[in-house]
Amino acid sequence: MFKHDIIIQKYGGTSVGSPERIKAVAQRVAQSAKLYKHVVVVVSAMGDTTDDLIGLAKTMSSSPSSREYDQLISTGENISASLLAIGLQEIGVPAISLTGPQAGVKTENIYSRAKILRVDTGRIKCELSEGQVVVVAGFQGATENGDVATIGRGGSDTSAVVLAAALGAEECEIYTDVDGVYTTDPRLISDATKLTEISYDEMLELASLGAKVLHPRSVECAKENQIILHVRSSFSQEEGTRVKEDSQMEIQRAVTGITLNQEEAKIAILKVPDQPGIAGKLFTRLADVNINVDMIIQSVEQDHINNITFTVNADDLAQAAAITQAVADELGAKGVVTDDNIAKLSIVGVGMISKAGIAAQMFEVLGAKGINIQLISTSEIKISCVIEKQFAKEALVLLHSAFELDQKIGSPS
Amino acid sequence: MFKHDIIIQKYGGTSVGSPERIKAVAQRVAQSAKLYKHVVVVVSAMGDTTDDLIGLAKTMSSSPSSREYDQLISTGENISASLLAIGLQEIGVPAISLTGPQAGVKTENIYSRAKILRVDTGRIKCELSEGQVVVVAGFQGATENGDVATIGRGGSDTSAVVLAAALGAEECEIYTDVDGVYTTDPRLISDATKLTEISYDEMLELASLGAKVLHPRSVECAKENQIILHVRSSFSQEEGTRVKEDSQMEIQRAVTGITLNQEEAKIAILKVPDQPGIAGKLFTRLADVNINVDMIIQSVEQDHINNITFTVNADDLAQAAAITQAVADELGAKGVVTDDNIAKLSIVGVGMISKAGIAAQMFEVLGAKGINIQLISTSEIKISCVIEKQFAKEALVLLHSAFELDQKIGSPS
Repeated sequence: MFKHDIIIQKYGGTSVGSPERIKAVAQRVAQSAKLYKHVVVVVSAMGDTTDDLIGLAKTMSSSPSSREYDQLISTGENISASLLAIGLQEIGVPAISLTGPQAGVKTENIYSRAKILRVDTGRIKCELSEGQVVVVAGFQGATENGDVATIGRGGSDTSAVVLAAALGAEECEIYTDVDGVYTTDPRLISDATKLTEISYDEMLELASLGAKVLHPRSVECAKENQIILHVRSSFSQEEGTRVKEDSQMEIQRAVTGITLNQEEAKIAILKVPDQPGIAGKLFTRLADVNINVDMIIQSVEQDHINNITFTVNADDLAQAAAITQAVADELGAKGVVTDDNIAKLSIVGVGMISKAGIAAQMFEVLGAKGINIQLISTSEIKISCVIEKQFAKEALVLLHSAFELDQKIGSPS
Repeated sequence: MFKHDIIIQKYGGTSVGSPERIKAVAQRVAQSAKLYKHVVVVVSAMGDTTDDLIGLAKTMSSSPSSREYDQLISTGENISASLLAIGLQEIGVPAISLTGPQAGVKTENIYSRAKILRVDTGRIKCELSEGQVVVVAGFQGATENGDVATIGRGGSDTSAVVLAAALGAEECEIYTDVDGVYTTDPRLISDATKLTEISYDEMLELASLGAKVLHPRSVECAKENQIILHVRSSFSQEEGTRVKEDSQMEIQRAVTGITLNQEEAKIAILKVPDQPGIAGKLFTRLADVNINVDMIIQSVEQDHINNITFTVNADDLAQAAAITQAVADELGAKGVVTDDNIAKLSIVGVGMISKAGIAAQMFEVLGAKGINIQLISTSEIKISCVIEKQFAKEALVLLHSAFELDQKIGSPS
C-alpha cells in the first residue's frame, strides 16, 4: 500500500485530558501509522496539570524564577508524552517519547517565552528510521547549556509547526476540541459554516481578533515555513479546516469570516493641543505597564486641536484611564472620557483586496438598521468597526448573512 | 567565620511531602548554607507523587516499557527539586535545581534498576562555584544516549552517596522521618536507645534484617566510598546516628542492635534421600518465580536422610509450599510441613567478633524462659534465631536488656 511520507500531529490539553482520552488518541495515531511511513506526535500537558504545577510554584513563591518555573512546568508535557507512548506500545505500535531537549529542540537562552532557534533532528530521525512513532513533549526546548526552556503562549502548536518544517513535512494536524475554523463563532450564530480552507493571512487576522483555535504565533510560523495547518477535532473523523497559502485562481467570496469582540473598552482624550510626540508619550506610558492598545484613531477637531481615541482590553480600563488622565493633564487637554459599553465587529477576507466596496457594504448594512459606527480601522484584509454593545449580536447576524457566510461555498446562492 | 567545605543532604518523600514541608526543608538548607561553603541537596519525589504516576502508567498498560516508565516517574523528583529551588530563592538563598541527567549522573544503559556508573561533576561544580545551592533530583541518571534511567530501590539515598563521593564530601546527611538508628524498633520497646554511631557492616545487617531506615545498597555504596552517613530527622535539630567505619579502639559492647521480623514463614522437607543437587534444584525453582529464601538449614536425620528447612516471606508461603511439595514428590521425600507462626530475632554487633560466648548468652536467655529455638543462623556479626511467634515480644525485651541496649553507652551500667 502506498504510504505518505510523514505527518506531524499535535494534540492539545483537552485531547489528552485523561488516561481514557490518551487511549483514544493512541487509536487515532495508530490509524495514521498505517497511512504514513513516519508519524511524529506533539502533546500538550494533560488538562489541568500545568495549572496545578503553577499553583505549586505560586505556593512556594509569588515570583518564582523563570528558570525553575520552566524546569517545573515542563514536566506536565513530559508526563503526557510518556503516557501516550505507553498507550501506543500497549496497542502494538512501536513508540518512544522524547522531551523537548531530547528531541533536539533548541531555544534562545531565556526562559518562559524563549523562541525556538532550530531543531537538531538526529535523534528523531534515528527513532523514525527504526519504525517508532515519536511522541514529543510540546511547549519546550533546551537552552545552550541543556536546561529546559518553555516557549510561551501558543507553545505546543508552534513546537509542532517547527518540527514539521525541520522534518520536511507538508502538513501539520492540529487536533483540538472544535472541528475547524468557522465563518464566525458558532455559539453566537448557529448557521455559521465551517471553512474548508483559509489563508495564513486571514487566519492571522482571525486569530489576532480573538478566534481561539490557533495562536497567531503558530500561524506565522506555518506561513514562514509554508506548512499546511489542518485544524480538526480529536473527537471525530471529519476533515477540519486547512490553513494554507491561497491556492484558488479566483477568490469565491470577499469575506471569509467575522469576529465579534465584546471585551474591549474605549478611551478618548478630548481637545488635545497639537504637539509632536503626544501619541508617543501616551502609548509609551501604557506599554510600560503592559497594557495592549488595539485600535487608535486621531481626529482633528479644529485647527491644531485633536481628539485621540483608542481601545484597550476592558480589564485594563481603570489603569489605562488613570494613566491617560495624567497625560491629559500634562498636555492641557480638555478631558478624558471612557466607555466600556462597546463591541468590535471585524470582517476578514483576502477577497476584499480585489473587490471594491466591501467597506461601504459593511457600513451600509449597519447604517440601514440605525447602528452607529463609533470607530473604524482597516487593514488590507480586515475592516473593524466599533459599535454600541447592545447592537453587537444583531450586527453580527446581519453581516454574516450580507456577506453570504451562511452558505457553503459552491452551493447555489 | 570558618566554613566546612561541602555537605550533601538527602531529603526523603515525607520530608518534601507538601509545599509547607518543602519550605521547612528550605529553612534547614539555608542554615547549612551558613556552615558550609557548598551545599548539594538530593530530593525524593513528594509523598505520593511516584505512586500517582505509577497509577497513571498502569492505567495505560499492565506492563509499561521500562524506558517510558522511567521517563514518566522521574518527573516526580524533578518537581520536588524545582519546588525546593524556588523555596530557597524565595528566602534569599541562591539555588538551582538539576535533573539527574543535568547533574551529570551517568547510569548503565538499562532502565528501572540501572546502576550509577559515574558522575560528570562539571555542571554541579560550576553551579557551586557560583555560590548556588544545587538541588539534584534523586533516583535518576542518564543513559549513554541521554535518556532518563531510574536506579531502583534505595535510589535517592544512593544518589546522595554517589554525589558525596564524586564531590569529595566526607559526610552525607540522610534526612528522614525518624531521628536515627535505634538499638531496636522503638515502637516495640520504649527504652530502645538511639545509637550515636554504627558501623557500615552492622548497618548492613540491620538494614537487611528489616530496619527500614536505610536501604542496604546505599550503605554498601557509602562503605565502598568511605562516606559517613548521618541519619537524622528533618523535623528536629538533634544529631542522629552516624554510619561509618569503626573508629573506636575498643568496642564498648558486643551487641549493637536487635531486630525482630514477624513476617517470615518456615517450610521443611522431611526425610529427603541424600542426593547431590537437591538443594540446588529446590532453590532454583523458587528463585525462578522470584521467591527470596532467607535462612536455610540442612540437618542429617540419619545416614543419607536429610531434613531441609528454610524460611520465606509469609506472603510467598502458599506458592513456595506448592513448589516445595512438587520437588519433594520428585525426590521421594516423606513430606512437607509449613509454619507461619514464627518470629526471627537477630542480634547484630561487630563486638561479637572479639567477645566469645555471645551466641551462648543469647540461647541461655531464651532457654531460661522456656523459649524453644527452632532455627539458628549466624554470620560474623549477626546471630538469628527463629522462635514461636507468641514469645517474640518477650524475647526481644529479654535480649535488649540482657545485652544492655537500654543503657546509653558511657552511662554507668
